[in-house]
Amino acid sequence: MSDILGIEDIRAAALRIAPHVRRTPVLRCAALEEQTGASVFCKCENFQEMGAFKLRGASNAIFSLSQQAVAQGVATHSSGNHGTAVALAAKRRGVPACVVMPENASAYKKRAVAGYGASIIYCEATLRAREAALAEYVRETGAAVVHPYNDRAVMAGQGTAAMELHEEIPDLEVILVPLGGGGLLSGTAVATRALRPGCSIIGVEPLGADDAWRSLRSGRIETLPHPVTIADGLRATLGPLTFAVIRDEADGIVRVSEEAIISAMRFVWEHMKIIIEPSSAVVVAALRERLVEVKGRRVGAILSGGNVDLDCLPWQHAEEKTCG
Amino acid sequence: MSDILGIEDIRAAALRIAPHVRRTPVLRCAALEEQTGASVFCKCENFQEMGAFKLRGASNAIFSLSQQAVAQGVATHSSGNHGTAVALAAKRRGVPACVVMPENASAYKKRAVAGYGASIIYCEATLRAREAALAEYVRETGAAVVHPYNDRAVMAGQGTAAMELHEEIPDLEVILVPLGGGGLLSGTAVATRALRPGCSIIGVEPLGADDAWRSLRSGRIETLPHPVTIADGLRATLGPLTFAVIRDEADGIVRVSEEAIISAMRFVWEHMKIIIEPSSAVVVAALRERLVEVKGRRVGAILSGGNVDLDCLPWQHAEEKTCG
Repeated sequence: MSDILGIEDIRAAALRIAPHVRRTPVLRCAALEEQTGASVFCKCENFQEMGAFKLRGASNAIFSLSQQAVAQGVATHSSGNHGTAVALAAKRRGVPACVVMPENASAYKKRAVAGYGASIIYCEATLRAREAALAEYVRETGAAVVHPYNDRAVMAGQGTAAMELHEEIPDLEVILVPLGGGGLLSGTAVATRALRPGCSIIGVEPLGADDAWRSLRSGRIETLPHPVTIADGLRATLGPLTFAVIRDEADGIVRVSEEAIISAMRFVWEHMKIIIEPSSAVVVAALRERLVEVKGRRVGAILSGGNVDLDCLPWQHAEEKTCG
Repeated sequence: MSDILGIEDIRAAALRIAPHVRRTPVLRCAALEEQTGASVFCKCENFQEMGAFKLRGASNAIFSLSQQAVAQGVATHSSGNHGTAVALAAKRRGVPACVVMPENASAYKKRAVAGYGASIIYCEATLRAREAALAEYVRETGAAVVHPYNDRAVMAGQGTAAMELHEEIPDLEVILVPLGGGGLLSGTAVATRALRPGCSIIGVEPLGADDAWRSLRSGRIETLPHPVTIADGLRATLGPLTFAVIRDEADGIVRVSEEAIISAMRFVWEHMKIIIEPSSAVVVAALRERLVEVKGRRVGAILSGGNVDLDCLPWQHAEEKTCG
């Protein structure tokens, strides 16, 4: 067991956030099970409020803070779902939120953050500019920072999704999790080790953003200067906390191509009739590409979110269109 | 109670098709409930196998036929979900199926029908050409015809969706149903009258294909020479059986614009993270346009299907796109 995060942290998180998050459904897909020969149980965090599991970690972090700690509000930097999750959780707690976003964040994501009443500070689209803008804001206001993943409360909150999955579906033999900054994977790993000790824990990363795969090989946190993947939620680099938990608890990391991600996303839309974003599709891609041996086994797959700009679908310009 | 169709027919259909159809989930949408002030229970037939409620009616019809009647196979004409449903139900029964399709049917629908092993006869894209091609095939082969809606067994099968909804969600006060040829609405009306006598039964039709609305006003079946709507499942005209049941049992028909249909479809994709086709979206459009008084009430809405060509989305060319 990790001394960074324990199952008791995840149990406490589950109690704390219960009034603020949905218990999302578990769905199966006949076409996927036919292709893989496995029983595949998809934990549909795309149905989570605000459209992604990120609400779990943000809610646990924000509701863990003392009244004094949140008196000046909360702040984070994010171009994606974590910013929206912080905005919503802060609204629920009744404190102001500020999200530092890169100028080039999608209009869709900007609307979502603003829609929950957070203020937005725009900055250049570099990690350095984002961190500088956040630091300046915190210095001026005294707001509490909620890191997107390298934070025990956030990791514990993310682990509640896998806890629910194990409660509902006993005896999973493998669990597949999208891997970006590692918050979801580390929470899942700790929950799974405690609840289903024999279950394999596999992170799935885009080939174009395989910093975690490299980090586990080298034994230290590796960064990629320019991660390139359509899975915008998975471009982040591991933090010291998530790296340590994943190194100690996960069983492996597999990597999927951009083509496999896009194909898997479309496969899920067509066959399951649910909307998932590219970051969710990586786990389905890993199954369809047979990167994990699952034939005849019981497999859990966390579909992490469903926030997609419907005007910009990845297959939109991929082929000649003949509508009608 | 209608002497055409009774609740006992729907109960028998439910037993007959139970091994062949999914009991689809009922979902709610916080954003829709906020907009309408109602509790809205969406019966998600988009999650039905082959992607639409049509499998219910086709299965009931095909499994109702005697072994002798299906000895030469089954046949129908369809450009859409009914053809796919007949193909799948016939495959399950182990008899050949033939679907007459217009040449201009979408590649997506052609693949679906062929994918379940049915043979396809292509014809010109007129009702007359379709009926002539089907009649010729039946004359030559002796196949049994499965009409898409004007058939008691089909109507009874379609009524099982509403029966499941009433079983799961008690005390609905209004139920909204997409209205094309009237199979789903007539089955729903008979089930609802028997199970929840006080519940209002409302059909929803596109303004550009409002033949049923006109038929109820004039008291006889009206046809539109050129129905124009993106809701391709709702272009059909009532048949004598569906007309009679709807006239006697339904409480009203409301009509929605193309803009409202497209907007409602996108709203459901974005907020519920589920894929519905335009024909399903009409019921959500009616709620959002306040064409039915639902504030404070418990509302059932049948989302009839989710078969969409992902290369041809209705908002694809509607606005300037700035992806990134």
